[in-house]
Amino acid sequence: MDNHIAAVPLDKAYRLLNHGPTVLVSSRHEGVDNVMAAAWACALDYAPPKLTVVLDKIAKTRELVEGSGAFVIQVPTVAQLQLTYEVGHESLSTQPDKLTRTGVDVFGIEGHNLPFVSGCSAWLACRLISEPHNQTTYDLFIGEIVGAWADTRVFQNGHWLFEKAEAEWRSLHYIAGGHFYAIGESLEARQN
Amino acid sequence: MDNHIAAVPLDKAYRLLNHGPTVLVSSRHEGVDNVMAAAWACALDYAPPKLTVVLDKIAKTRELVEGSGAFVIQVPTVAQLQLTYEVGHESLSTQPDKLTRTGVDVFGIEGHNLPFVSGCSAWLACRLISEPHNQTTYDLFIGEIVGAWADTRVFQNGHWLFEKAEAEWRSLHYIAGGHFYAIGESLEARQN
Repeated sequence: MDNHIAAVPLDKAYRLLNHGPTVLVSSRHEGVDNVMAAAWACALDYAPPKLTVVLDKIAKTRELVEGSGAFVIQVPTVAQLQLTYEVGHESLSTQPDKLTRTGVDVFGIEGHNLPFVSGCSAWLACRLISEPHNQTTYDLFIGEIVGAWADTRVFQNGHWLFEKAEAEWRSLHYIAGGHFYAIGESLEARQN
Repeated sequence: MDNHIAAVPLDKAYRLLNHGPTVLVSSRHEGVDNVMAAAWACALDYAPPKLTVVLDKIAKTRELVEGSGAFVIQVPTVAQLQLTYEVGHESLSTQPDKLTRTGVDVFGIEGHNLPFVSGCSAWLACRLISEPHNQTTYDLFIGEIVGAWADTRVFQNGHWLFEKAEAEWRSLHYIAGGHFYAIGESLEARQN
């Protein structure tokens, strides 16, 4: 594991997702790994931390999540713009070499039999909380976050450092048609 | 209604939320209006368009949503930073004059008995899809988007104009402790 990667306390895990970035979803089942992009992922609870993610029925990653009961939500960076777009627009079902074609490299974290995507800024290892009605009716999956990590070059001591880090570390926020925004300027509200 | 506000076709409504902004949730029931902030709102489907939002059991807005079966999700701007923070940290239960104190002004849209917050960049009128298990277990509410509007100074023809509009129109992305990021730079992936 890259020595810039540090564990994030679970009670701060929601902060990795709170600003609404587009994420990569990865999963592993019976020797098959896949990675897809998802704009529809969201924090759901603080303690134990949970999140939601929408996984379409045509997504191969969904099969892997349903089979293994586990997945990773990770936050890609501006440096991964093209990779993020491409893993969101190619399918492992029709492109068996999808991960090679799109330049995805994965690494392992001890205690988790999951593929973590290299180069991201943050990773959330999740255990699927089975909710068949939500999954079937809404394509909506709920995960309990059981491990969290971030790259210390952009997240430290519970805080994102977007304003100090290189611009290539900023999170991506997808709209449509290949169009993203990077996260921007830091703003502080007065606390009364 | 402000003459800068234009209807957004329902098949493009998801784009108002796709980049993960912090939102304001408003509702009206039996003559009571309330507005709260929520970082945990997310698109759920394209057609018919749906979204999810997490409403804590202590939120007065949740009572209004459960009573009326309707709510508005709206996208506040950098100009509304302090208002957004304050409606997220005061409760109508303990501060009956919350909306006056926080400077919230609401307007109406014909055909919807709902309070729309003035000055936002986009508005999504939602009909609650009752899912008691999700609401009770996860504080998770699902809405069908039945009307969508945006301010044409920052969203036109299905596209956000953050890169052209004044910086005060940018969306807010909350982290914690009064700390937000504005949405940032526009980025385009190569479409193969």
